[in-house]
Amino acid sequence: MPLTLSVTSRKPQELVEITAEVARAVGAAGLREGVCHLFVAHTTAGITINENADPDVARDLLGALERMVPTHHPDYRHAEGNSHAHLKASLMGNHALVPVHQGRLVLGTWQGIYLCEFDGPRTRRVVVTLLPA
Amino acid sequence: MPLTLSVTSRKPQELVEITAEVARAVGAAGLREGVCHLFVAHTTAGITINENADPDVARDLLGALERMVPTHHPDYRHAEGNSHAHLKASLMGNHALVPVHQGRLVLGTWQGIYLCEFDGPRTRRVVVTLLPA
Amino acid sequence: MPLTLSVTSRKPQELVEITAEVARAVGAAGLREGVCHLFVAHTTAGITINENADPDVARDLLGALERMVPTHHPDYRHAEGNSHAHLKASLMGNHALVPVHQGRLVLGTWQGIYLCEFDGPRTRRVVVTLLPA
Repeated sequence: MPLTLSVTSRKPQELVEITAEVARAVGAAGLREGVCHLFVAHTTAGITINENADPDVARDLLGALERMVPTHHPDYRHAEGNSHAHLKASLMGNHALVPVHQGRLVLGTWQGIYLCEFDGPRTRRVVVTLLPA
Repeated sequence: MPLTLSVTSRKPQELVEITAEVARAVGAAGLREGVCHLFVAHTTAGITINENADPDVARDLLGALERMVPTHHPDYRHAEGNSHAHLKASLMGNHALVPVHQGRLVLGTWQGIYLCEFDGPRTRRVVVTLLPA
Repeated sequence: MPLTLSVTSRKPQELVEITAEVARAVGAAGLREGVCHLFVAHTTAGITINENADPDVARDLLGALERMVPTHHPDYRHAEGNSHAHLKASLMGNHALVPVHQGRLVLGTWQGIYLCEFDGPRTRRVVVTLLPA
C-alpha cells in the first residue's frame, strides 16, 4: 500500500480541511526539497487549495458550485443519481501538488488544503507521494 | 521527442478513455515508485479522471459542462468559434498525475483516465513523463 | 526562500501570460528532463495553460467564467466580497505542471502559461519547483 490518508466527511457536500494531516505526513517522510502529491482515489470527491481563515469562503464556494451544477437536473441519466458529484469532482480536480522547502509545506498565508466531498458522508482515501526536486 | 501517446476522438465533444494506454506506457518505462504525469499539448482538449463503469457519467458530465459553457453564445469574440472548447479545457485542466506503486498505476476502483475532446474529431498528443518518488 | 516568480496584474480580472519568465527560470535552473511545477501562493488567483495567439480567447474565457460565477450574488456571505474570485481560482486550479525535455519547456504550438488574476490589481507569487524525470 502506498502512503494514504483517511479523511471522513460528515455531510453530503462539505470541504474538509486536511492541511495539518498533510504537514504531518510530509514531516514524517523526511522530504527536504520537492513537492507533495495528493491524489483522491474516488470519483465523487475532489481536492482544492483555498482560504482557511473565514469559513464562509468554503460555504460560498459550495453554494456557487451548486448553482453551476445542481444536484438534481432532468437531463441526468446516471442511475446512481450523483452525476452532479462526478462533475464537481472533475471541476475541482482530484489532485493537489504542494511545494516542500526545507522539510515544510510551502503555502501562502491564507491557503489550506481541502478534501471536497460531493457525495457524503463517507470515508475517503488520499494517496500521498513525495517527489524530490 | 518526449514519450507521447496519440489519442483519436470521433466526435466534436467526447470523453475518450486512455487508462489502458497509460498503464502500458508506465509498465514499459519501468518506473517502480513515483507518479505518471500526463500533459495534453492542446488548448481545446483537457484530461480528467472519473468513473469508467457507467458510460452515462461521461455523458452527463459533457451535458452539464455544455449548460455551463454553451457552444454558442453571443458574447464570444474569438474568430475560430471554439471559445467554449478553450474554457472547457481549462475547467478540466490539461494534465493528470497518477501515483505509481510497485510498478503499477494506483487508481480507485471506479477511476478511469479520460482525454476530454471539446473540438473534435481530432488526433491529440498526450506527453507522458515519469517522476520517481 | 524557494525559487519564486513575481507577477503583477493591472486589472481586477485578467490573464497575464508568464510563459517567457517560466522558460527563463527553467533554462537558468539547468533541468534537462522532468517537469516544471508552478504553484500560485494565493487564494484569489489561479493558473492555466491556454491559447496565446488570439487575445480574444483570454477575453472570452474571463467572460464565460463571469457568467458562471458572477462577481456579485445575493447568496455570498464572505465579508471581503471576493467569493467569486475564490471559486474562479479553484476552477482554474492553483498549479500548472509543464514537461521539460532537453532543457526546454514542452508546449503545444498555441499553448501559453497564464496567471489568472481574479481580485487585482496585485503582485502575485508563483513558486517554481523543478522535478527531474
